[in-house]
Amino acid sequence: MSELRRDALLRHWVIFCPERVTRPLEFHEEGIRLQEVDAFLPGHELLTPPEVYAIGDPGRAPNTPGWRVRVVPNRYPALRVEGQLEATACGHNDCLTGIGAHEVVVETPDPNKELHQQSPQGVYEVLLAYRARMLDLTRDLRMRYIVAFKNVGPLGGASLKHPHSQIMGLPVVPPVFIHELNNAREYYLRHDRNYFDDLIRQELSQDLRVVIENRDFVVLCPYASRFSFEMWVVPRRQSSDYRSVQDYELTTCAEALRQALGKLHRTIKNPSYNLVLYTAPLRAMPGQAESLWESCYRWHFKIMPRLSGIAGLELGTGVFMNPILPEEAARHLRTLRGA
Amino acid sequence: MSELRRDALLRHWVIFCPERVTRPLEFHEEGIRLQEVDAFLPGHELLTPPEVYAIGDPGRAPNTPGWRVRVVPNRYPALRVEGQLEATACGHNDCLTGIGAHEVVVETPDPNKELHQQSPQGVYEVLLAYRARMLDLTRDLRMRYIVAFKNVGPLGGASLKHPHSQIMGLPVVPPVFIHELNNAREYYLRHDRNYFDDLIRQELSQDLRVVIENRDFVVLCPYASRFSFEMWVVPRRQSSDYRSVQDYELTTCAEALRQALGKLHRTIKNPSYNLVLYTAPLRAMPGQAESLWESCYRWHFKIMPRLSGIAGLELGTGVFMNPILPEEAARHLRTLRGA
Repeated sequence: MSELRRDALLRHWVIFCPERVTRPLEFHEEGIRLQEVDAFLPGHELLTPPEVYAIGDPGRAPNTPGWRVRVVPNRYPALRVEGQLEATACGHNDCLTGIGAHEVVVETPDPNKELHQQSPQGVYEVLLAYRARMLDLTRDLRMRYIVAFKNVGPLGGASLKHPHSQIMGLPVVPPVFIHELNNAREYYLRHDRNYFDDLIRQELSQDLRVVIENRDFVVLCPYASRFSFEMWVVPRRQSSDYRSVQDYELTTCAEALRQALGKLHRTIKNPSYNLVLYTAPLRAMPGQAESLWESCYRWHFKIMPRLSGIAGLELGTGVFMNPILPEEAARHLRTLRGA
Repeated sequence: MSELRRDALLRHWVIFCPERVTRPLEFHEEGIRLQEVDAFLPGHELLTPPEVYAIGDPGRAPNTPGWRVRVVPNRYPALRVEGQLEATACGHNDCLTGIGAHEVVVETPDPNKELHQQSPQGVYEVLLAYRARMLDLTRDLRMRYIVAFKNVGPLGGASLKHPHSQIMGLPVVPPVFIHELNNAREYYLRHDRNYFDDLIRQELSQDLRVVIENRDFVVLCPYASRFSFEMWVVPRRQSSDYRSVQDYELTTCAEALRQALGKLHRTIKNPSYNLVLYTAPLRAMPGQAESLWESCYRWHFKIMPRLSGIAGLELGTGVFMNPILPEEAARHLRTLRGA
């Protein structure tokens, strides 16, 4: 069984999942596993664990073709729902049993249709699947946080080619979100304003880094972009929690996301990127009221193109180097007509 | 000129260095620049900017052969010492002019002798060069932090093959160090003990994750290793600051580091890795006394093997996945005889 360990000093969590590798010393430099059979093709439903969610033809039986989006447990899960969540001390260190969820969202039956090539309805249904899985996993009280993310291309850490995202339910709130939540809260307490409101207002008024605007969303290249052509998809309506996103917002979010990814693809040939959904924790952490983040944090997507690797400087210090100013990136991305 | 920008919410710094790329849209997926001529070979001294430090034959003239370690400014510097350090606001964001230092430590005249293949004296002289450059750069009062790091292999972000490290002088204290310093301080205030003393004591007594021990240093696989075969080289003597490392410690540190890297190379063929030196800031930050970290933080090296890329989960959440427990890694590394 896998386990989670927290570094006593650095406070990060690491998931140790020995089952995800057959033999430790078989390691190679290669990033990509070779995929012999595409288990995500229609007709191959029995090659994956039984589905937990699907969008498809009315009357379709589970684990048969006819789906448009299909969510299945990961065949090599880093975390599992089976078992007991146990917290133990190992000296001054913290350890948890590897309880959680690790699911794959198969975004389309078509192995060659990347997310930006999908119809608006197609992207909408992927976003709908994220929400549905989050709501369902919330019922497991051991889950503290759910993250949805997508790895594309070799530098993005993709291990399978068939378009898919991943959903992980974690029994801890990851440090990046704690950091973001705390800072958003501090900003709110200091200014009595929501940071994301200020961000949108400032970006729209400066009009240097906005890439796409629609009724409900703004896509912008952030002022301190860590990655060239990085984009954030930020909702205009205050809501800390993706689980409460409205259907009409999913429609306009899908539109914005699809356009943003389309522009990225027209800027860089076969871009590697990560798409990550940032949202509030599922429930209050010990000693914290949920209201702490309800009004000060806002869910959003970050699109992080991976044009180069993460080297010693970035990894060691958290300081990133970026050769392209976001103003330049946005100017270029704006000139490209919407997909 | 390059500039540093801080994200208002996330507080990370990004160095924007447009001069490091000729034309923004010439980007490709490739990580590695092709090196036409090796400017780091003896006899090619005039292909680099004039050296700022060297260890070599007595009586050798600067920028001529006869050196064993040679430090030169980076030909494509992300930060420069020339110019004024100016801090400006851009809306609610922070901006600094790109003042700092960016140097290359050419570790050996031999383009094929990697750090672990050097003699103990050779590694010692590289560590000596780090200290010398840090002491010299300290004289520039605009520098707040100096980081020494080494990128090896494609996944480590290496851009040149000739064995080298980099030294960056930054006008800010990077967030990773602030985090580490703050946590070390909190630990000290809570327990009235130094975290690194506790770490060494616990690891030696459990004896599960120690790889190498000598008179002055302990090399261990950390309990929550983010990377398979990750190793930390930790001094036994309390000192927050690498600039105050003693010569006798550089000797035993070189020995430990060389053995650790040798073991890594015998475990993984041509491993990609990052080596990062963690040390205290050069001077107190506004509102902080240096004594805050003097007794609670300890300088050390982290060796981070890069067997796979950093994907959406790691990047987005700070939660890492590692298929190999540090106990397993250490058991394997210990069985290999010292280099």
